[in-house]
Amino acid sequence: MVLKNRIGNLFSLTSFGESHGPAIGGVVDGMPAGVRIDLDQVNQELARRRPGQGGISSSRKETDEVEILSGIMDGVTLGTPIGFIIRNRDQRPEDYDHLKDVFRPSHADFTYQAKYGIRDHRGGGRASARETVSRVVAGALAKQALLQLGISISAQAATVVDELPHGDTIGGVVLCAIKGVDPGIGEPVFGKLSSQLAEAMMSIPAAKGFEIGLGFDFVNHLGSEVLDKWVFQDGKITTETNYSGGIQGGISNGNDICFKVAFKPVATLMQPVEGIDSQGNVVAIEPRGRHDACVVPRAIPVVEAMAAIVVLDNVLLARTSRL
Amino acid sequence: MVLKNRIGNLFSLTSFGESHGPAIGGVVDGMPAGVRIDLDQVNQELARRRPGQGGISSSRKETDEVEILSGIMDGVTLGTPIGFIIRNRDQRPEDYDHLKDVFRPSHADFTYQAKYGIRDHRGGGRASARETVSRVVAGALAKQALLQLGISISAQAATVVDELPHGDTIGGVVLCAIKGVDPGIGEPVFGKLSSQLAEAMMSIPAAKGFEIGLGFDFVNHLGSEVLDKWVFQDGKITTETNYSGGIQGGISNGNDICFKVAFKPVATLMQPVEGIDSQGNVVAIEPRGRHDACVVPRAIPVVEAMAAIVVLDNVLLARTSRL
Amino acid sequence: MVLKNRIGNLFSLTSFGESHGPAIGGVVDGMPAGVRIDLDQVNQELARRRPGQGGISSSRKETDEVEILSGIMDGVTLGTPIGFIIRNRDQRPEDYDHLKDVFRPSHADFTYQAKYGIRDHRGGGRASARETVSRVVAGALAKQALLQLGISISAQAATVVDELPHGDTIGGVVLCAIKGVDPGIGEPVFGKLSSQLAEAMMSIPAAKGFEIGLGFDFVNHLGSEVLDKWVFQDGKITTETNYSGGIQGGISNGNDICFKVAFKPVATLMQPVEGIDSQGNVVAIEPRGRHDACVVPRAIPVVEAMAAIVVLDNVLLARTSRL
Amino acid sequence: MVLKNRIGNLFSLTSFGESHGPAIGGVVDGMPAGVRIDLDQVNQELARRRPGQGGISSSRKETDEVEILSGIMDGVTLGTPIGFIIRNRDQRPEDYDHLKDVFRPSHADFTYQAKYGIRDHRGGGRASARETVSRVVAGALAKQALLQLGISISAQAATVVDELPHGDTIGGVVLCAIKGVDPGIGEPVFGKLSSQLAEAMMSIPAAKGFEIGLGFDFVNHLGSEVLDKWVFQDGKITTETNYSGGIQGGISNGNDICFKVAFKPVATLMQPVEGIDSQGNVVAIEPRGRHDACVVPRAIPVVEAMAAIVVLDNVLLARTSRL
Repeated sequence: MVLKNRIGNLFSLTSFGESHGPAIGGVVDGMPAGVRIDLDQVNQELARRRPGQGGISSSRKETDEVEILSGIMDGVTLGTPIGFIIRNRDQRPEDYDHLKDVFRPSHADFTYQAKYGIRDHRGGGRASARETVSRVVAGALAKQALLQLGISISAQAATVVDELPHGDTIGGVVLCAIKGVDPGIGEPVFGKLSSQLAEAMMSIPAAKGFEIGLGFDFVNHLGSEVLDKWVFQDGKITTETNYSGGIQGGISNGNDICFKVAFKPVATLMQPVEGIDSQGNVVAIEPRGRHDACVVPRAIPVVEAMAAIVVLDNVLLARTSRL
Repeated sequence: MVLKNRIGNLFSLTSFGESHGPAIGGVVDGMPAGVRIDLDQVNQELARRRPGQGGISSSRKETDEVEILSGIMDGVTLGTPIGFIIRNRDQRPEDYDHLKDVFRPSHADFTYQAKYGIRDHRGGGRASARETVSRVVAGALAKQALLQLGISISAQAATVVDELPHGDTIGGVVLCAIKGVDPGIGEPVFGKLSSQLAEAMMSIPAAKGFEIGLGFDFVNHLGSEVLDKWVFQDGKITTETNYSGGIQGGISNGNDICFKVAFKPVATLMQPVEGIDSQGNVVAIEPRGRHDACVVPRAIPVVEAMAAIVVLDNVLLARTSRL
Repeated sequence: MVLKNRIGNLFSLTSFGESHGPAIGGVVDGMPAGVRIDLDQVNQELARRRPGQGGISSSRKETDEVEILSGIMDGVTLGTPIGFIIRNRDQRPEDYDHLKDVFRPSHADFTYQAKYGIRDHRGGGRASARETVSRVVAGALAKQALLQLGISISAQAATVVDELPHGDTIGGVVLCAIKGVDPGIGEPVFGKLSSQLAEAMMSIPAAKGFEIGLGFDFVNHLGSEVLDKWVFQDGKITTETNYSGGIQGGISNGNDICFKVAFKPVATLMQPVEGIDSQGNVVAIEPRGRHDACVVPRAIPVVEAMAAIVVLDNVLLARTSRL
Repeated sequence: MVLKNRIGNLFSLTSFGESHGPAIGGVVDGMPAGVRIDLDQVNQELARRRPGQGGISSSRKETDEVEILSGIMDGVTLGTPIGFIIRNRDQRPEDYDHLKDVFRPSHADFTYQAKYGIRDHRGGGRASARETVSRVVAGALAKQALLQLGISISAQAATVVDELPHGDTIGGVVLCAIKGVDPGIGEPVFGKLSSQLAEAMMSIPAAKGFEIGLGFDFVNHLGSEVLDKWVFQDGKITTETNYSGGIQGGISNGNDICFKVAFKPVATLMQPVEGIDSQGNVVAIEPRGRHDACVVPRAIPVVEAMAAIVVLDNVLLARTSRL
């Protein structure tokens, strides 16, 4: 369930924050009581998202450390909402003065202006990928609850890039596998687990494609080639193959849940590009600021975080399926 | 926003119905008052979804006709909820007796049983693609409101299939374009228009992949090759190319919104397959019932319907962006 | 949770229907699977709501019988949404022709027109108390699930009226007690069980006041007089008195949940009154149609129904409070 | 709409914070862009809520000052979520050590423990009235948007108390009037403006009763005595009297919206009371900490805040009623 800046039904994240404002943060609501939280692990997840991953990321120094403001006492969740903030540091808003009246190509400058009639032009404001720190915090909390339920989540890049185009950018694909989800999780019809995952993944900045199981490659096969045959193994029913990606009819079948997310190349190039101002005049934009050449390394923990939010939410929802 | 069998925030559809129960139906809530509704057009949309499209669809006779129960008076919407039903006819529940205790491969039989501890085995019950008639009705109503706002939606198959594999099935891709959406529609962060569309499309039975604009193909390009350059045309700002698919930062930029949906091959083959019973015994399943060889022709109006629901909802939401 | 014509979070009712349209109905979503449903009991609840209760109710013949369209198979809930309709019969829309362009005093005619720019004037349209049949159906279903969990709900009139003012109307108060709710049900802060009950009750047509426990009478007592002392009884902690009405801090304490709802006198009198037309001209309105002299007798099952919806919803929610 | 710690549909507050944790705060989502915000006014509202109102309030020093973390740039709202925190100061958690294993009478200690299996015992934790600072911040922001739309909200105590019972506590009633709301605001059926107001008010700590217009007093009148006669005045239709409290059929009629909220006496007395421990042993509790003798003076700005949240939310919702 998404309503503006909130995602999730029973376990939810409401996030806030502009890239160069005082802080990024959010409220995690619906975390069950009694979950032991290791704050170091939350900060380690933030470190994975930090610039400087794999040599192709931005050099902005984000020594992000989360401050938990509520909902956890003596390391254990209370069942009440978990408010948290991450202060923005190393801000250089003056880096963005030249963009105040310019819409960059393939950015959200123009669309935010069209929607709100006003925008924070500093580093993309709310549209900056910096907002994903809130996702990573919420995901790190969800992951710890899930681990205690035997569920683990792991994402990776589909391909490794050795050399980077000078001054240019590239996109990429992230694979993710969720292990340990019992059969019966997910809602039918509109709330399919696959559709909730699609929504969550496509909400990540620069995400442009999603597929579950074989995905688009299903089109290259006959039905008889891609049926997931049932087998009885270790005392339970499972599938021999996993073309479906662990979800059938929107509901988990107990096998690993596997999906892919495609990210477009970063839109901010380290070379001059053309923008436009509100009067329609073309404006040359010189490269400035600090930016990633590829979003994939830093997107990996974000993909895991969003998966954790969706899965924990649905694990809780599933407790109400039967009387 | 999805909560169980409801989709949409301000304009929403809550649907119900099993394939072989008395009726399929739903409630369309949030339709603005004052929309002139042509019921014939609603029924024409239903006709497009009916079996027998393009020679590769099921022969079940679904002479679906919608009965509107509320919310429309003298052909004009009242602003109150529109309840509607479509009676199920030509039911042959006995066709499914042999499936009562068997889980078919790549179907939702097992997962529904795991979730609810009970299931309607007749024609897939709630998991049947028959539930999409509700979507088509809601979408047809939304389309008429959108047309009055200058927005049109059109989907088509990506490829045409001439010959069908005998007794086997195929999948396919549906392309969709939404024209006439003003800049500024869609929510930032979690509620991106692209993520809402992804959720809506991936909730269609057999949908396995979604991409917006270039989608997965973004991976094959450098950033400098796929920037959508701004131009000033006919007195307004727009993009020269449309790699982004009409959405930037989750919000419409005024260009056409273009996306694709991948559908897997139909899981019900017209040849013997192996299922499993609840004790884990393999069970041979003989082909019976009436089924599509490819879901694409009938999915086209469903894709349009879901797009219409999402877009109308977001057009209404956008009215509240500014004071 | 209320969003337009929907109430409830996990267990919800989305309702539709105008008083003199083809049907009233709704979708009950989130009913847990495996609940045995006695349809006769649902119809008995409808009979309690029917005109002709206690001699002071309308003589409109509403031989309401519900038709269940989905979600129940062989008398057991499937976990899927339960669609239902009640056909409107004995309609006499012509009784209302004289009201087409007139706003009656203390009715919703003017406010609906102001909101939607259009309204169904026949018998109040959507604003008619007839919409409560949907509530009674949903409540009757919820009650059966609750009974299987040991929870019962019972409402009654606070005072008995022997004689009725000729041609005039009266209001009244309904008391309700919910027994068997375990401690720990309800949400803190905004979603207090008391605040959810208040919302649900105040949504009933003609409801004008709500109080929990001592309610407004708390004002006449010192704090020391109205503390609910804890006692240990039958192996569990409970309160000796129940001034709080079974709810503390928004969460049930295990004692009976007791509240009252005040209803105003019926606004339709059996004597001439003055209305106004859209041009501002005063219009005499002669009494016509069939109406209750007091809403209380028919409101009793509606109060119970709304209580059942709220309580079942919160019982399900409470399953997710702890890991 | 309430979902756990969130209230509101389009304009919403998600709140967090325990009384003696690091901070209280929240996220205001859905604030329209372009609203000029005076932060001094927000702090003035907080000052009204502070202990020491009218000589009958707690002496805890809450020099609350809000820190806005996002959503406002150069004093104007951006349309993005407004994150905010208020640091807890002058905490004395050791004042509450003696309550760690004791359930106080008429408090939420027992019910929170029952719900979550764990609780923050320091000053009531999340159940403390201290959480209302978040409401006041959100309400103060909403009020400023409403003022720019010509809507004002004003609450007051129904009676003035001169002398206070020594060591005891009292309750009271708060009256509230909302002026300037156009006709047509509010949703029909479940989302009546009166039912949303009831929910919001009953969610305030210690609130035990709500009535709109004449409320419970309707019971003492015949229908003919309390009809709100329509009149044509200053070029528009309005009511001569206002027994309905400005709402008919759940929708505003343009007249002042008037309601009352009853608060119970504060449950913490400045005299010894009896509690119980988890084993069922009666425990004497000596008075400690700093507490109000009457909640009314400090509840007044909270009532106004909740009213502002509900009204702004519904003003935005109403923009989508017509095509």
